[in-house]
Amino acid sequence: MATINRNYLKLPGSYLFSTIAKKVAAYSSEHPDADIIRLGIGDVTKPLCPAVIKALHTAVDEMGEAGSFKGYAPDLGYEFLRNVIAQKDYRERGCDISPDEIFVSDGAKSDCSNIQEIFGLDNRIAVCDPVYPVYVDSNVMAGRTGEYDEALGKFENVIYMPCTSENGFVPDIPKEIPDLIYLCYPNNPTGTVIKKDELQGWVDFARKNGSIILYDAAYEAFISEEGVPHSIYECQGARECAIEFKSFSKTAGFTGLRLGYTVIPKELSAGGEKLWPLWARRHGTKYNGAPYIIQRAGEAIYSDEGRAQVREQISGYLENAGIISEGLKAAGYEVYGGVNAPYIWMKTKDGMSSWEFFDYLLENLQIVGTPGSGFGPSGEGYFRLTAFGTRENSLRAIERIKGV
Amino acid sequence: MATINRNYLKLPGSYLFSTIAKKVAAYSSEHPDADIIRLGIGDVTKPLCPAVIKALHTAVDEMGEAGSFKGYAPDLGYEFLRNVIAQKDYRERGCDISPDEIFVSDGAKSDCSNIQEIFGLDNRIAVCDPVYPVYVDSNVMAGRTGEYDEALGKFENVIYMPCTSENGFVPDIPKEIPDLIYLCYPNNPTGTVIKKDELQGWVDFARKNGSIILYDAAYEAFISEEGVPHSIYECQGARECAIEFKSFSKTAGFTGLRLGYTVIPKELSAGGEKLWPLWARRHGTKYNGAPYIIQRAGEAIYSDEGRAQVREQISGYLENAGIISEGLKAAGYEVYGGVNAPYIWMKTKDGMSSWEFFDYLLENLQIVGTPGSGFGPSGEGYFRLTAFGTRENSLRAIERIKGV
Repeated sequence: MATINRNYLKLPGSYLFSTIAKKVAAYSSEHPDADIIRLGIGDVTKPLCPAVIKALHTAVDEMGEAGSFKGYAPDLGYEFLRNVIAQKDYRERGCDISPDEIFVSDGAKSDCSNIQEIFGLDNRIAVCDPVYPVYVDSNVMAGRTGEYDEALGKFENVIYMPCTSENGFVPDIPKEIPDLIYLCYPNNPTGTVIKKDELQGWVDFARKNGSIILYDAAYEAFISEEGVPHSIYECQGARECAIEFKSFSKTAGFTGLRLGYTVIPKELSAGGEKLWPLWARRHGTKYNGAPYIIQRAGEAIYSDEGRAQVREQISGYLENAGIISEGLKAAGYEVYGGVNAPYIWMKTKDGMSSWEFFDYLLENLQIVGTPGSGFGPSGEGYFRLTAFGTRENSLRAIERIKGV
Repeated sequence: MATINRNYLKLPGSYLFSTIAKKVAAYSSEHPDADIIRLGIGDVTKPLCPAVIKALHTAVDEMGEAGSFKGYAPDLGYEFLRNVIAQKDYRERGCDISPDEIFVSDGAKSDCSNIQEIFGLDNRIAVCDPVYPVYVDSNVMAGRTGEYDEALGKFENVIYMPCTSENGFVPDIPKEIPDLIYLCYPNNPTGTVIKKDELQGWVDFARKNGSIILYDAAYEAFISEEGVPHSIYECQGARECAIEFKSFSKTAGFTGLRLGYTVIPKELSAGGEKLWPLWARRHGTKYNGAPYIIQRAGEAIYSDEGRAQVREQISGYLENAGIISEGLKAAGYEVYGGVNAPYIWMKTKDGMSSWEFFDYLLENLQIVGTPGSGFGPSGEGYFRLTAFGTRENSLRAIERIKGV
């Protein structure tokens, strides 16, 4: 008789964003005239830039002609895309990454959740707290964790590394040595960054202990300050201890197009075994490549025209972030992030819990955000707003908050 | 210290199609003027039909305007696509499948390899022999098999069900009862089909024993004869024991666009636990949806115009299949498939092994095919040709074979 993977049953029933959606729907149906401003989910709102649209149309036309039609894509992705990524995202920044160390995929979410598969089930993971839920959930499904402790809001056998205002949202080196260390900077949900010397400390720690850092750089394009690393490979020795994930979703508004990539240096190994061939095998066996037309769309953001247009989109979102975070500060809130990231992380009002503050904002100001505790126990007392709305809504939200 | 998933090391080093590519490359470099006809890999060659191209252009334009831009897709896929699939692929054929039992994805390969994740590691799998390698390899990676036995060409702890001319390429019910049964009809690699009463026998067997059938119907669109089931849900009771995978790759030439879907009936359970919520959780946690523009392209093949154009493409490939299989028969070969499938499965010449015949065809006739033994030990002595080349090349290949 077939049986299920019982690890799935360890996952709490309701997903953070579906709980929020239900609460908002209930409020809307009771208050049909309410003018709700949604600054909750991290989805973009600006349309794809003209250079991307043009590349898509051109590629679509190629797919309609026998002479230029493309079937299955090469396993790692098309060379035209891997070459430009290696050049523009790495070599021009002084990082030694070659095109055949880049695996093109349908997004960082898939890669971040699939990467654990190439590691043994006995590996112990460490995550920041608060954290993007996918890192932990994918390990729960694989059986690398124990049960969920409702009271603590944590899974057993996971090293949670608190990130709060006290440590500047960069975790302290844990006492127990983890095998796999998930880091995400610029950070989701806190919108904060790690400085290069701090990241170098993590690289040194990983090399010393044979740990692997799984570095999620999905929000890299939002970095606006000097001294903030754009890639973990800016750190010495990172080729020997780190895998990096990148996304086109937030960089160029590809949430609905799906494109990302993962970097695995050729010499990177765990327990004496190279990781590149394992991921190549997984990629070839369980995946069939990102669509040609979308790989062409990705290539377009590296042209002079594409770069300028994408930069303008990001500047627009960063302006929203500035409006929100300056406005909140003026209203007396303690605010983090929003400078090198599209997320604003704030302390709640008057010691409210994250969910109390969620209800307060929804019911009194008709603003929807995300309770910090939904990202982990150390997020309690915090709240996330995103800069992905329109400029107008960002301004209106702040007017409402200041008006109270 | 991080360690790897050592199950990956059980996989034989070289993948079938990369071995073939290397042999062909070596021959080409020694014979630079050789006019090689490639009937090996199952990739399509006809361009996307006009209805699909038009839908892609329209959707691309929507992505370029703020009012019609689409970000993250709904978890299960857009309703416009799931509704038309449920109606045209199921209800109009008398199968009771609802839109919310359909999970849209980037293709049947991903789904076929990921589905094993929601089952326990103690489940014993059964596969046809010969077989599409992804079913076994994904279970090897997960640790559901033993070591690979080079001499037998089999993994330990897998039930191989021989499919040969003796049983009409439909496996006999195995003596040991499997938990998970992979079936693919129309079949890759043999190009043969299962009749409805035979498939009903498998459904009855699975229901009686609490097994789950994982039914790969990727080649369904090639069915040209009556009495051949288009879906396993044509069988009574299949909703209680079967998951079905479908692909747009061969149906409409989407190998380079990536679109497919998986059907999981709401009542389907294993060991008393429902499977739908597990797959929904996996889909939501480890995947972020097929691109909007590609879901619109998928929708287009169900319009009157799209259906007619796609039908014409398939007719063209089936004509190639007819040219190849009739030609081979006239040349004295024993030939199977090619009527309801794009694959022709033939016995080799004069008792040659599959790889001897590969070398013979390449060196003497400059034709590339796929050795049957590459798909499993019961494929020894057989050889696969595909109908996905051009009509001209199909004719030329047969002329060469007849000319000998």
